[in-house]
Amino acid sequence: MNKITITHGNGGKQTHELIEEIFYKSFKNPYLKNTDGAIINLKNPNIVVSTDSFVVKPIFFPGGNIGKLAITGTINDLAVMGAKPLYITAGFILEEGLEVSSLKEIINSMAKEIQRHEIFFVAGDTKVVSKGEADSIFITTTGIGILLENHPLGLESINDNDVVIISGTIGDHGSALYLKRNNLDFDANIESDCNSVYFPIEALLKECKTIKIIRDPTRGGLGTVLNEFVQGQKWGIEIYEDQVPIKDEVKGICDLLGIDVFHLACEGRFVFVISESEKDKAMNILKKFPLTENASIIGKISSKYPERVVLHTRIGGKRILDMLSNEILPRIC
Amino acid sequence: MNKITITHGNGGKQTHELIEEIFYKSFKNPYLKNTDGAIINLKNPNIVVSTDSFVVKPIFFPGGNIGKLAITGTINDLAVMGAKPLYITAGFILEEGLEVSSLKEIINSMAKEIQRHEIFFVAGDTKVVSKGEADSIFITTTGIGILLENHPLGLESINDNDVVIISGTIGDHGSALYLKRNNLDFDANIESDCNSVYFPIEALLKECKTIKIIRDPTRGGLGTVLNEFVQGQKWGIEIYEDQVPIKDEVKGICDLLGIDVFHLACEGRFVFVISESEKDKAMNILKKFPLTENASIIGKISSKYPERVVLHTRIGGKRILDMLSNEILPRIC
Repeated sequence: MNKITITHGNGGKQTHELIEEIFYKSFKNPYLKNTDGAIINLKNPNIVVSTDSFVVKPIFFPGGNIGKLAITGTINDLAVMGAKPLYITAGFILEEGLEVSSLKEIINSMAKEIQRHEIFFVAGDTKVVSKGEADSIFITTTGIGILLENHPLGLESINDNDVVIISGTIGDHGSALYLKRNNLDFDANIESDCNSVYFPIEALLKECKTIKIIRDPTRGGLGTVLNEFVQGQKWGIEIYEDQVPIKDEVKGICDLLGIDVFHLACEGRFVFVISESEKDKAMNILKKFPLTENASIIGKISSKYPERVVLHTRIGGKRILDMLSNEILPRIC
Repeated sequence: MNKITITHGNGGKQTHELIEEIFYKSFKNPYLKNTDGAIINLKNPNIVVSTDSFVVKPIFFPGGNIGKLAITGTINDLAVMGAKPLYITAGFILEEGLEVSSLKEIINSMAKEIQRHEIFFVAGDTKVVSKGEADSIFITTTGIGILLENHPLGLESINDNDVVIISGTIGDHGSALYLKRNNLDFDANIESDCNSVYFPIEALLKECKTIKIIRDPTRGGLGTVLNEFVQGQKWGIEIYEDQVPIKDEVKGICDLLGIDVFHLACEGRFVFVISESEKDKAMNILKKFPLTENASIIGKISSKYPERVVLHTRIGGKRILDMLSNEILPRIC
């Protein structure tokens, strides 16, 4: 078995072989049975569910692959809702001709993240389409978790002068993909930030009681997420460009190619709003995790600019930061 | 907005428009918020989860479309596990150029099934890939439900002489797809059986206490599912061909094309094993539902043929019915 063939999707013998030899070996756990689904037990009734489809291209990129991304992406969606991930499912759409060795590497990356988070893979499905009807592999994951605290996060509790914190450098994932996709070589060693943000968020929610909202700035980047926050609100957000952590290489690429770094995707970052009184405590917690050691207070809630995200630029000017409204780079996740 | 463009997948303005105008309108409910997931509340801790990816081709076929199939397929996976579906999520992968009118029709079919079952669409995601990188639309759904009874179904409780019942004619979906895909016109008016089997299963589980296992014979057909039952068991299954309901048109097509009807997919049928003592009660319940009025007792559990499915043919012979081991027809679901 070197390449995926159309018979691997027939639901019969070959599908069973594929599942036994590749999926089941990596994902084995007491919940995963040879049936159409799984029975799980959740005593806590505050269940959080999130789903995401992953079509990233190329499927292997500096810092990760589609498998790692499919698990961490859904874990992150639960984490930013204030939930601890417990169970995950995945639907695979495979293109005929996919190298089985690539599939194994992807599955292994998924299994590694699953184990690291002590979650369970509880249900899966695999379809195979003919050559040219999909692009290598698409993965859709659904995560199920429970709320860490008894109240969900929300925009309602946001007040003037609350601060906005980003957990690390922005634009790494987007620019790594951009370079890899276009075979550009700037002598730039940029890796995707593709990573789970669960553990720092868990620590923050345990220690800080005034976190208002958390989001992961994936597609559309930080600019889009901040605009989602302010939509329909009586307040806006002021961001100070010189406080936003951006790697020099990322800055260089954005300048060269005319891309706004605020619209470049991150896949291992989160942005959150917290009351001014707890900002130092939050920063101290973040500094303890290697993933979030570059966290920075980048701005504040401001009733001066309702429904707007205003960027105070490095050179002392001001500009409105908008949502992404064109496609810079399709298939970044 | 006539066709899906690559900017509909950017995560920014156009994605928001697509979600607002098409998805949100059809799926609106109190759980569906503009966040990365949903918080649901489940007091019953016996939760059942199932996931399935749908790549059916063509996306519109006699008797249904990929949207109806994506909802009923996952509802059926929960139903055959003895669960009542409560919540559903969907990940959409759209090919650039997809007609927005087609997408609307698909979404409407999904919404109709969702409403009919009084379930909630709680989380979704949409990705767009360039022309030629996918085929129109792929949908992955995940269903969350609770067990109808307090014990899960399982093969352990199966005994000699338990009976095997199929809920209706077999091979309708597979042959409808085959005809449509190959533009064959046999003057045959075959429609897919694409449908939810939840309501008859709910009624059966309420009234009958000796149902051992239920399955929906989708990919690989009835032959594959029955073989999954007998794997590693001390018993086998005897099936009587003249008791298996098959439409004349389906029989004709299978004879003409040399396809084994036992390997053709159904998408609105279930097969179950029940103790002999309750077979009449079960049949009476099934006769009350239009969807299952052609239900039939097709065979029995038999220790004479361990690990085998033996078919007593119409002409008085016997043959081993095996799992599907080639691909008759890719992308039937």
